[in-house]
Amino acid sequence: MALDAFWKNKKIVALAGGVGGAKFAHGLAKLLPAGNLTVIVNTGDDFVHYGLNISPDLDTVMYTLAGYANPVTGWGILNETWHMAEMMKIYDEPIWFNLGDHDLATHLIRTHGLRNGETLTAITRRLSSALGIQHHILPASDDTLATIVETKESGTLNFQEYFVKYRWQPTVTSITFKGEDTAQTTSAVMTALNEADMIVICPSNPMLSIEPLLKPAGLRARIESRQIPCVAISPLIGGKAVKGPADKLMTELDLPATQTSIARYYAGLIDGLVVDTTDAHEGDAVREAFPEMSILATETLMKNEEDRAVLAESVLNWTREVLL
Amino acid sequence: MALDAFWKNKKIVALAGGVGGAKFAHGLAKLLPAGNLTVIVNTGDDFVHYGLNISPDLDTVMYTLAGYANPVTGWGILNETWHMAEMMKIYDEPIWFNLGDHDLATHLIRTHGLRNGETLTAITRRLSSALGIQHHILPASDDTLATIVETKESGTLNFQEYFVKYRWQPTVTSITFKGEDTAQTTSAVMTALNEADMIVICPSNPMLSIEPLLKPAGLRARIESRQIPCVAISPLIGGKAVKGPADKLMTELDLPATQTSIARYYAGLIDGLVVDTTDAHEGDAVREAFPEMSILATETLMKNEEDRAVLAESVLNWTREVLL
Repeated sequence: MALDAFWKNKKIVALAGGVGGAKFAHGLAKLLPAGNLTVIVNTGDDFVHYGLNISPDLDTVMYTLAGYANPVTGWGILNETWHMAEMMKIYDEPIWFNLGDHDLATHLIRTHGLRNGETLTAITRRLSSALGIQHHILPASDDTLATIVETKESGTLNFQEYFVKYRWQPTVTSITFKGEDTAQTTSAVMTALNEADMIVICPSNPMLSIEPLLKPAGLRARIESRQIPCVAISPLIGGKAVKGPADKLMTELDLPATQTSIARYYAGLIDGLVVDTTDAHEGDAVREAFPEMSILATETLMKNEEDRAVLAESVLNWTREVLL
Repeated sequence: MALDAFWKNKKIVALAGGVGGAKFAHGLAKLLPAGNLTVIVNTGDDFVHYGLNISPDLDTVMYTLAGYANPVTGWGILNETWHMAEMMKIYDEPIWFNLGDHDLATHLIRTHGLRNGETLTAITRRLSSALGIQHHILPASDDTLATIVETKESGTLNFQEYFVKYRWQPTVTSITFKGEDTAQTTSAVMTALNEADMIVICPSNPMLSIEPLLKPAGLRARIESRQIPCVAISPLIGGKAVKGPADKLMTELDLPATQTSIARYYAGLIDGLVVDTTDAHEGDAVREAFPEMSILATETLMKNEEDRAVLAESVLNWTREVLL
């Protein structure tokens, strides 16, 4: 298989959260000519820890596209060291978020830039460029928009408390987004969408990664009114998330962990849904519920870097064939 | 030689800047029963770098007393790593101040504490205590008091720019202290001085370490009106500073780099001056200029940890003998 020549001069916008989204975006990045991919990244996970502005999903996408990512964890930096964190322990400071030594440079530069009035968009561009990334990584917003998780056992939690501190074990009763009435998207995001020939929603958590990404004013509406195809890669395989709490969360929020639920969640936003071959049998149910939606069943599990490009190629070729 | 039993229940206040001061304070710390030493530390070198509140002299004294100091450099932490700084280079960020990975924990905790309204005194107490230090380390002030260096070649420089970025090479034309009209000392410092049986000015740079330390309102006057002995250990040996720019600076400011100049600088503050045996011959000149001042000539170069305690012991025994 080879990438359809059609895509060689086309621009693609990918919407991504953390690890899964970053892997698929990396596949696209490897296939497409320099500059033709824009990854719009969730900032709902962003938080301030020890006075540092941390943007976990932006960092995961950036490190992954730059080839710096730790391939085992998916987040963080390859061959990372933890000496600052070890010293924090000696100081008896409760540090529950993983702050690696190399990674700290990213947080320090970002924090310093924000304090000096630089936008998250400009800082991200500067950092990505220094790491040699030739595509574009954009935060969904330069404003604060924080995912808040209401839980049965532990009350109201900031996203990273829920995700890292409590290892997504508490039962979620609802998800809200602080700042959703005021957060705007950016002109860079709108320009990328205006120039795009296709939009892809990466295999990220629909409720915790894509939902906050779409919250900034105008973003969801812009995609709903698109004249170009938009497809999503489902994060579920056999009713389970490859990584993270997607299926657990869906169940807790009374949404069966099925491909039909994913299609329903993205209804109005997507023209096609990519599911794993394991779930090919769910295709009929999805088609029955959403007759206009095209379905591709293919291998969606990305076990290595090669898999990322193969999946991206399948998705693009199929989109060209079926939706354009 | 053994420490005169007289000192076993006496309280000592030491005034210290960076490396040299920290070494002598460490000697005292090893000799004295837990809690009997209070080191008042210069904060004129403190600055904000990449949004981090850095207190170089407090850290040097703290790391030294805790046994964490790098014995080769005198500053920084033993077996330090520099991964954050290496990543900064990859990001093309101009980082000229040495920010080690372990050391970063100190800066992050301090910065976070200050932002949350904790005083530098309280933060220093917390950090020192976590590192197992049983004596007291106090900043001379909780207020901002910044040493500013006017130079011939490079204009006005903040202290760390002069000291680290320009490696104290520019010619100094004057030294000023930003905040000297408003900076107060702390009640902890005043209490320590009120309870002290002796004051020692450590072998630190008189103009760059001790002068700013004494600037906070009331501090110099409190020492000048003392009823207890105060002695200084000269930072010069044979007309040269053991480390740093003391002699170069004295020459630039038209002050010969002699023990008489040191005595003159500290006139009114000290009853005794400790000089190196190399400079014993300068004793007569000092006595002629300051007939009331006692002089001890002894080995002042501290090449290893043992030397620190030996020097401290000599100074205390001599003070007991001559000044009490």
